[in-house]
Amino acid sequence: MADTAYDVVGIGNAIVDVIAHAEDALLAELGLSKGVMTLIDSAEADRVYSKMGPGIECSGGSAGNTMAGIAALGGRGAYVGKVRDDQLGEVFRHDMRSIGVAFDTNAASDGPSTARCLVLVTADAQRTMQTFLGACVELGPEDIDTALIASAKVTYLEGYLWDQRRAKQAFIKAAEAAHAAGREVALSLSDPFCVDRHRADFLDLVAGHVDILFANESEIMSLYQTAAFDEALIAVRGHCRVAALTRGEKGSVVVAGDDVVVVGAEPVAKVVDTTGAGDLYAAGFLRGLTAGQDLATCARLGGLCAAEIISHYGARPEAPLADLARVALV
Amino acid sequence: MADTAYDVVGIGNAIVDVIAHAEDALLAELGLSKGVMTLIDSAEADRVYSKMGPGIECSGGSAGNTMAGIAALGGRGAYVGKVRDDQLGEVFRHDMRSIGVAFDTNAASDGPSTARCLVLVTADAQRTMQTFLGACVELGPEDIDTALIASAKVTYLEGYLWDQRRAKQAFIKAAEAAHAAGREVALSLSDPFCVDRHRADFLDLVAGHVDILFANESEIMSLYQTAAFDEALIAVRGHCRVAALTRGEKGSVVVAGDDVVVVGAEPVAKVVDTTGAGDLYAAGFLRGLTAGQDLATCARLGGLCAAEIISHYGARPEAPLADLARVALV
Repeated sequence: MADTAYDVVGIGNAIVDVIAHAEDALLAELGLSKGVMTLIDSAEADRVYSKMGPGIECSGGSAGNTMAGIAALGGRGAYVGKVRDDQLGEVFRHDMRSIGVAFDTNAASDGPSTARCLVLVTADAQRTMQTFLGACVELGPEDIDTALIASAKVTYLEGYLWDQRRAKQAFIKAAEAAHAAGREVALSLSDPFCVDRHRADFLDLVAGHVDILFANESEIMSLYQTAAFDEALIAVRGHCRVAALTRGEKGSVVVAGDDVVVVGAEPVAKVVDTTGAGDLYAAGFLRGLTAGQDLATCARLGGLCAAEIISHYGARPEAPLADLARVALV
Repeated sequence: MADTAYDVVGIGNAIVDVIAHAEDALLAELGLSKGVMTLIDSAEADRVYSKMGPGIECSGGSAGNTMAGIAALGGRGAYVGKVRDDQLGEVFRHDMRSIGVAFDTNAASDGPSTARCLVLVTADAQRTMQTFLGACVELGPEDIDTALIASAKVTYLEGYLWDQRRAKQAFIKAAEAAHAAGREVALSLSDPFCVDRHRADFLDLVAGHVDILFANESEIMSLYQTAAFDEALIAVRGHCRVAALTRGEKGSVVVAGDDVVVVGAEPVAKVVDTTGAGDLYAAGFLRGLTAGQDLATCARLGGLCAAEIISHYGARPEAPLADLARVALV
């Protein structure tokens, strides 16, 4: 097999987060469900934004956050996602490239603006997210460079892509290109509502296209429609090569054939903001896996990265994660 | 005199900050002087941005920060400044309006994009700022609504406006409109380099157009070209109605006719980022002044606001400043 240029190529919705503090009363006024990610249209985005307090903007997106984690761990990454040729699109591209992640997907030159996620942070540290997908709906199979996919050890896909018809086609094209080149495909289930929307497709995908599955408890239980984590764990066994299942403060469980690896959570002095925990767990896990580490080490590294991200605001790493990697990989 | 709709109308450069961590080596590579604000053109902005790490974007601008402080203190504010009709311009307008500050200056529909200040934060908590003024250069006298100026107790001008010819005309038009309506004019000297660039003009302005002057030690010493603060203090006395001079950890000195009021600095547990200290001192002082407080109370309120802003990253208030105001105004 040819040498790889990249450890991981991530494909996802390229989104700029707009983060503001909010009172519970504002959520009620806007009719928002706390802690939930909802897809909204342009008019609703304008309505919510007009009621929000002053914001800060920073690049986000689930797979984008994961790629930022992999880069912070010293991994070689590339990203595929669709922005528009507008200022927030330039911000997203800059932020990705500035951390050393290759990002060469063409920007859309017309159509909706770069995607925004309006994040309302309440005093209880919960985040209520309203996502306007904007230019992300333009991502299609023509954006998948099969040579790029073939040059990465793992192609990582976020489940949110499944919300759009042409992104699904891109997703399948990328998975097939990866396997044709003898590479692996990883999928994150993204969130339980996303699983609800696409359960049958995701079950087929996991069986037919996915080697490495990332899910948290509620996502994997939703996928297999069971109320018990242990039943979901039995169901996923053999369904893909590796399933890495995160359980919050209970750590994670990795299932791979007959092996089950249980790793405790890293201690965190104060949980400030849980957003990005899953994204960064995937970053740590994939960094370990592509460095040839065993599953327990991968899970430990995932847990370390998740612990870092939940100890501060924002879903992209602040600490030099490479230091964490050195600890984990000793 | 008619009732006022606003306590303060602030006029300044409407700028979005792009903030990133940086190593000293990057400053050296880019040839930047640490801690200094430099005006740059579009090409230089692109060059610096392409070398910067991932950023966060938030609204800034000296007078913009002051108006955010006045709003956070429960004051009634309006803002005049020029953005373009682009995404960062919308962000700036949203952030201003969302805190209750009226901001109705027309956006430029062509020409350069909304102004950005590229802020490189080094490990020693210093900020090195490269400002691309962009659409700010379009601000002119046609943007000054004399009825708006007449409806505010104080018109507050940032010295940075003096860097552009047409903004100067706007500045003079606003000052004359304020005085014609029996209102007062306040000026912040912005920074010692700005004073160096425009010393003769600023001396004329202070004598002819300014009732309330804000300056820090190095600015007021630069204005009067003296190496001793006490000499500057003597020079400014009688030059305008009130001069509020800030001295960092030594607090502030207010000179008004024969009165000299000395107020100590508020204790700060940890100085995190001194950006915005002057902007927020002006906010507190003007909030007190427009509420009819005596000069010592105004200075105390200014100091409280400055202490809040330097205890965290960013130049816009995080704490509910109205609580500070209640303490100071008891």
